[in-house]
Amino acid sequence: MALIVQKFGGTSVGDPERIKNVARRVLNNKSTDDKTVVVLSAMSGETNRLTKFALSMQKIPDRREMDVLLSSGEQVTVSLFAMAMKALGQDCISFLGDQIKIYTDCSHTNARIQAIDTEKIMDSLNDNKIVVVAGFQGVDENGDITTLGRGGSDTTAVALAAILEADACEIFTDVEGIYTTDPNVCNKARKIERISYDEMLELASLGAKVLDIRSVAFAKQYNVPLHVRSTFSEAEGTWVIKEETAMEGKAVSGVTYNKNEARITISGVPDQPGIATKVFTPISNAGIVVDMIIQNQDTGNGMTDMTFTVLRSDYKRTMKLLESVVESTQATGGVQGAETITKISIVGVGMRNHSGIASKMFSVLANEGVNIFMISTSEIKVSCIIDEKYTELAIRALHDAFELEKDTPAIEENLV
Amino acid sequence: MALIVQKFGGTSVGDPERIKNVARRVLNNKSTDDKTVVVLSAMSGETNRLTKFALSMQKIPDRREMDVLLSSGEQVTVSLFAMAMKALGQDCISFLGDQIKIYTDCSHTNARIQAIDTEKIMDSLNDNKIVVVAGFQGVDENGDITTLGRGGSDTTAVALAAILEADACEIFTDVEGIYTTDPNVCNKARKIERISYDEMLELASLGAKVLDIRSVAFAKQYNVPLHVRSTFSEAEGTWVIKEETAMEGKAVSGVTYNKNEARITISGVPDQPGIATKVFTPISNAGIVVDMIIQNQDTGNGMTDMTFTVLRSDYKRTMKLLESVVESTQATGGVQGAETITKISIVGVGMRNHSGIASKMFSVLANEGVNIFMISTSEIKVSCIIDEKYTELAIRALHDAFELEKDTPAIEENLV
Repeated sequence: MALIVQKFGGTSVGDPERIKNVARRVLNNKSTDDKTVVVLSAMSGETNRLTKFALSMQKIPDRREMDVLLSSGEQVTVSLFAMAMKALGQDCISFLGDQIKIYTDCSHTNARIQAIDTEKIMDSLNDNKIVVVAGFQGVDENGDITTLGRGGSDTTAVALAAILEADACEIFTDVEGIYTTDPNVCNKARKIERISYDEMLELASLGAKVLDIRSVAFAKQYNVPLHVRSTFSEAEGTWVIKEETAMEGKAVSGVTYNKNEARITISGVPDQPGIATKVFTPISNAGIVVDMIIQNQDTGNGMTDMTFTVLRSDYKRTMKLLESVVESTQATGGVQGAETITKISIVGVGMRNHSGIASKMFSVLANEGVNIFMISTSEIKVSCIIDEKYTELAIRALHDAFELEKDTPAIEENLV
Repeated sequence: MALIVQKFGGTSVGDPERIKNVARRVLNNKSTDDKTVVVLSAMSGETNRLTKFALSMQKIPDRREMDVLLSSGEQVTVSLFAMAMKALGQDCISFLGDQIKIYTDCSHTNARIQAIDTEKIMDSLNDNKIVVVAGFQGVDENGDITTLGRGGSDTTAVALAAILEADACEIFTDVEGIYTTDPNVCNKARKIERISYDEMLELASLGAKVLDIRSVAFAKQYNVPLHVRSTFSEAEGTWVIKEETAMEGKAVSGVTYNKNEARITISGVPDQPGIATKVFTPISNAGIVVDMIIQNQDTGNGMTDMTFTVLRSDYKRTMKLLESVVESTQATGGVQGAETITKISIVGVGMRNHSGIASKMFSVLANEGVNIFMISTSEIKVSCIIDEKYTELAIRALHDAFELEKDTPAIEENLV
């Protein structure tokens, strides 16, 4: 007997026919004594449709009401799924976020799960029902509906898998798994069989879109084995699991990129204590998230430059905010910015045991004539900011240089 | 200060632009210290869309899941309405059925309201918010979503008005009010200014579609003044209220008709005790509702005929069921039926004090050459089953004969 949580996203349940197919697939893969919990997103396109309605009502839609509105999407898919399952002769029951007390904080549109009451779920599973849960939604202490923000259904699935101590959490998606890089950019991209939580966290935060970072962090915290696989094929996908020795055989596991950032430099600011606060407090007060920050060393004249990146959608607002910062800091060099940049990153737990990985990345880029604007590193990743136009070139060069198209024997052995 | 409950149906909130219009209208008509509760249905067409989805999943959709599915419709309209109201500068908060504990029994798709917790509503009203409540939906003791069936949003509105002791419950619809008869059939039809609960109950149960009978019964029980009026005009509509002396000045208040029934006769059954049970038990066991029943007197040969009406949609099923009844009762005359009949009715509390109303109706129909198949009467109505093809002719003749196009002075005086 196994307890499995399976999550299907919006394209997998995009219309009634697809919902039926998902029901068939879930039932076919279920052994008699398996316990299955299914988590569903809204039909693809539904969230956009509802958001458009909301924006036609109010310029900045009220966030409490937005959650009431958006949570209707999963309500539709889970009830239809339960009907489809019953039509196949398998008993099934749907639960919404507030029905199984997926308690969250009160941060409407971006809430965090705090607790889940498993009683109703376990009772239904013990009655041999398949349980289908509305992803993305919860309820706060006031009884108000909340939603979990981007990737919220993944988070629901992982949280349920954690609290139910599931044997696995399967994330069904429209791709076959996690790839060494974007297959649309590099035709040598290879599906990864096993990857560690930490690598996946870096990949997710650096731009890989298959899994949301929050659900990966949750899975790591509770040691939930994640299986990312395709709705439309029976092939094994990618397992995201606890780090294994074999994983360190390879220095680099994947190359990823992110075109959603913009770069800003404020030049000629006095190099004195508290200057960073003066620059970044107004930005953070405006709710703008800063990613990379580099402060150049004082070049001798008591002045310094600061360069940082923000989301491209926050670029114009940040540039505007900096006008007063230039005044208050008396920055002599003013502000420069560029919207057309890419953050390109290599990720791998093996980096810890392999030296020279960063310098190899720099030389690969240099050999292709790609200038590096900013560098940031962690224990298991190196990121470089480059001009956007070199993105594809850089990815293919790095993928080749680190031989990512080849699987390592050490990992293969571990797969059985 | 007044506390008003206003209900807007599906066509009034049929798209985002209409929802905005409704918000504007509610706000314009609200005095500063009025307390306003708005009840909304789903967008027109939405229930059909969702029902179609459900039927593509399961031949007879599971009723618990159907309620989860359908209740998403009002969730969309109330949240959008709250946003629209906030955009107009008026604070507003939405509540779903389970958020204000509209407790019902467990009869999914046709539940009855048992209790409502008014605390959240009153708190919000006292905070000067407009409260918008999802109509049609409730929650049972298990925390499962229920829906109230046909006309459910009217019932929600009346129930809220009753428990909040509202000054009035306004039902906004796409017609101007209750008419003496269907204006599409008779161009002399006149909007009624005031009508009693009992008359409205008869009209609703006899085929008038503006108000659902359940909400009228609820309003009568709790003495909630109902105001049926148009969403698209500022004109006064029809008040449905407690009976007043003035209302008895007129014998007949309205003529209504119902084409949804079919007539069935079983002939030559032995006229002995228990025979009616033998005929009707199999029918009621099949969940078929019988409306009118007439048993002719024994004509001397120890045999009798029974004629009754059922919903036209149940006609074929009933005829099939009667095959075995004919055998078990040894009915010598077999079964005859007709699907093309109309029940035409006159209604008025004044009938109690006016004699000869029924016989006048019969002679009016006779003068037009309309044959009457069945008759049924109550204290304030007379119904006749006639051939469907005479429907319009009969309505116009009765409307003329009882001078329904004229308002009576007695009622006029009472209107001030």
